[in-house]
Amino acid sequence: MTSLTDDIIDIAMRPADQVPDLPLDFAKLSLLDWMTCGIAGTGEPLAVKLRRLAAGEGGQPLAAVLGGMRVPPRMAALVNGATSHALDYDDTHFAHVGHLSVGIYPAALAIAEMQDASAEEMITAFLLGAEGAIRVGMTLGRAHYNHGFHQTATAGAFGATLAAGRLLGLDGLQMHHALGLCATRASGLTSQFGSMGKPYNAGISAANGVECATLAGLGFTSADDGLMGHQGFVGAHLPSGGAVTGPDLALDSYKFPDNKYKLHACCHGLHPMIEALQASEAAAGVPLDDIKSFSLSTNPRWLAVCDIKRPRTGLEVKFSYNWLAGMTLRGDNTGDDRLFTDTIAGEAELGRFAERISVTGDDELTDLQARGEISLTDGRAIPVWFDLADPFAPEVLAEKLQRKSSTIIGDAGAAIWDLHPRLGQLGARDIASAMLAASA
Amino acid sequence: MTSLTDDIIDIAMRPADQVPDLPLDFAKLSLLDWMTCGIAGTGEPLAVKLRRLAAGEGGQPLAAVLGGMRVPPRMAALVNGATSHALDYDDTHFAHVGHLSVGIYPAALAIAEMQDASAEEMITAFLLGAEGAIRVGMTLGRAHYNHGFHQTATAGAFGATLAAGRLLGLDGLQMHHALGLCATRASGLTSQFGSMGKPYNAGISAANGVECATLAGLGFTSADDGLMGHQGFVGAHLPSGGAVTGPDLALDSYKFPDNKYKLHACCHGLHPMIEALQASEAAAGVPLDDIKSFSLSTNPRWLAVCDIKRPRTGLEVKFSYNWLAGMTLRGDNTGDDRLFTDTIAGEAELGRFAERISVTGDDELTDLQARGEISLTDGRAIPVWFDLADPFAPEVLAEKLQRKSSTIIGDAGAAIWDLHPRLGQLGARDIASAMLAASA
Repeated sequence: MTSLTDDIIDIAMRPADQVPDLPLDFAKLSLLDWMTCGIAGTGEPLAVKLRRLAAGEGGQPLAAVLGGMRVPPRMAALVNGATSHALDYDDTHFAHVGHLSVGIYPAALAIAEMQDASAEEMITAFLLGAEGAIRVGMTLGRAHYNHGFHQTATAGAFGATLAAGRLLGLDGLQMHHALGLCATRASGLTSQFGSMGKPYNAGISAANGVECATLAGLGFTSADDGLMGHQGFVGAHLPSGGAVTGPDLALDSYKFPDNKYKLHACCHGLHPMIEALQASEAAAGVPLDDIKSFSLSTNPRWLAVCDIKRPRTGLEVKFSYNWLAGMTLRGDNTGDDRLFTDTIAGEAELGRFAERISVTGDDELTDLQARGEISLTDGRAIPVWFDLADPFAPEVLAEKLQRKSSTIIGDAGAAIWDLHPRLGQLGARDIASAMLAASA
Repeated sequence: MTSLTDDIIDIAMRPADQVPDLPLDFAKLSLLDWMTCGIAGTGEPLAVKLRRLAAGEGGQPLAAVLGGMRVPPRMAALVNGATSHALDYDDTHFAHVGHLSVGIYPAALAIAEMQDASAEEMITAFLLGAEGAIRVGMTLGRAHYNHGFHQTATAGAFGATLAAGRLLGLDGLQMHHALGLCATRASGLTSQFGSMGKPYNAGISAANGVECATLAGLGFTSADDGLMGHQGFVGAHLPSGGAVTGPDLALDSYKFPDNKYKLHACCHGLHPMIEALQASEAAAGVPLDDIKSFSLSTNPRWLAVCDIKRPRTGLEVKFSYNWLAGMTLRGDNTGDDRLFTDTIAGEAELGRFAERISVTGDDELTDLQARGEISLTDGRAIPVWFDLADPFAPEVLAEKLQRKSSTIIGDAGAAIWDLHPRLGQLGARDIASAMLAASA
């Protein structure tokens, strides 16, 4: 047995009182952000089709589905995973190379609801499963992604399996078999991006986790080390096929707090600039007409991605430093997808301001950093800077995510965030019911 | 769109009256052999556990499960695929590099039962799906298998998707999406061999086929060419990752008749010798005591696999030319797994005969060929020869498979083979009911 497999089982079976608060605080925020994305995605065509699939099968009403009805947990995990990834507005973990919440929370919630676990037990299972998924994702690394595999679905399924297995009370041997079954079950390709196949991948992750953990609980067996053994999942899903070891991380190291949240409904390359401008107290409230120029430095790779100087459509605005700079400085809510219309692409005020902006590539900046200077007509200069790699404090992030939630799902967002201070007293069934009520 | 994807969709949508009889005759035999293996596997621990999984989910009773009960088609396909592969006694297609029936028939039967299709429509859908799976398996080739992937599950799922899609009446665009979804859903590793994970792979194939075809029928979309496009299934699941084309086969070429059936409950390396001895009219009925010697030539790779000179256990008998030669010549039913006991390993008659046998490697023989000579005490010599690559005529194969069926499932075998002459008049629901009755 290799150490990665043992490590992630150890982590997933850790006593709850040994899990520190900080990563749990982030896991709680992820739950509410995941629910927000799921509720917002409920009306998407792919979500409607998946609910028709679920209704066609029927079965034991054990786990809530976004948009209404209860079905067996595997199906709930499939539908909820895909539905919550429909808008691509959910969180990202860059070391894992994927989206943790949409691939793991649906499995944790479905099993926790069936088991009548507490909300905290569910959140802890998610967190520890996510830590496993991060380690599997890091082990597979960029080579896996670049070869065509989507870690959200592949590494994610191992996290979903661990989370579901913990909530089902599997012992260590059953956990080994659950991971072994996941090794032969996990799948997902990046070539699906741009189709319903991408959100489907998140559902695949969660559904596979439920199926494999449930089977292991029934005594189903698998390869001894399906993940790391000879021609196990890792070997087969890397082009080299050779021996690979897990990441060099202490067992009590938590990587989940590095998770990133999408706070703006536009290209990720623009987010460091938006955060830099929003973080500047000196720039707050300055009218655009009082700004003589704004010079921005960014990682050069973004220049080919999101530096459209004169966007013609709402979609192009999502890829324009020029437009987002003006929108942010005048206080537009960039978390609101409805803002990105063809009308805003034609706004004269933004067009005039765009002419006073310069964007330059700087190799010394990472792709999560932005540096700039705002020159005012009165001669003052305001430097701005942001690095998305620096985590927000949980309370800062909570405020931002709550605003995002209210923006994209309105009153339902308030209802979801009302749960936040009460999570310690709630059961997973309360969470599931709240999700049903907010999305029905 | 590349030609392989278009080709297999063309084949899967072919009008029934353009499908020739010979491959259909083999597909009918495969149906009955698949049912035989499934009925025989019904009591295996993994099958019992999967039925508990199915019972726990419940749902619409649309499709029969081996061993009793009806459930939604995806679950029926999962359980029946794994159950029928439990004994590893099902058919093999060497160019496909996998087991076609266990990965595809469960999907075809489950959807055909739901749709109330005729048995012939179901068999035709299986055959055309299998032709697609063979082409996908050939495209992936040995490089895929050697990298750790199990074509039964991976290439098989595309066949299951095509068969299910045909029975659901998908149009060409929906077929494209169904294959695209399968591309991101298909999985299965050879490192599971020796565990319940191997039969699970067959269930995975069938279940994925049902899910992907059903979703495409609901209007779910996927990558344009998820199978052969850039970083599609084929590219991602080969270590080279580069451009690959499908096999050079005419659209109206049928490869299914090359399918091989397991007729003896022992190592495949012994099968050519057993068939050679059984095919010899001159050797039939000759008492072992009248045989002075038997010399056998076989492909050298088998010498390291199944040339145990003095087996000590029933399991070792399964890997012994010496023992199987005597058993075959005296007329033992080598299709009967119960024959392979420790007692037979200790039989004096077989031990004496073993001393008069010589086995030699010959590079000029393929691993499907055997050549030998029986020298009688009266001075006569009987040459024997067999090449498993030569297909049996359907009527010869039918007789052999029927004997296998009676051997391993007794009266249930007779009931299954009673269906054979009536397949043209039956519905898929009759087949499903017969399977239920024989396995309950």
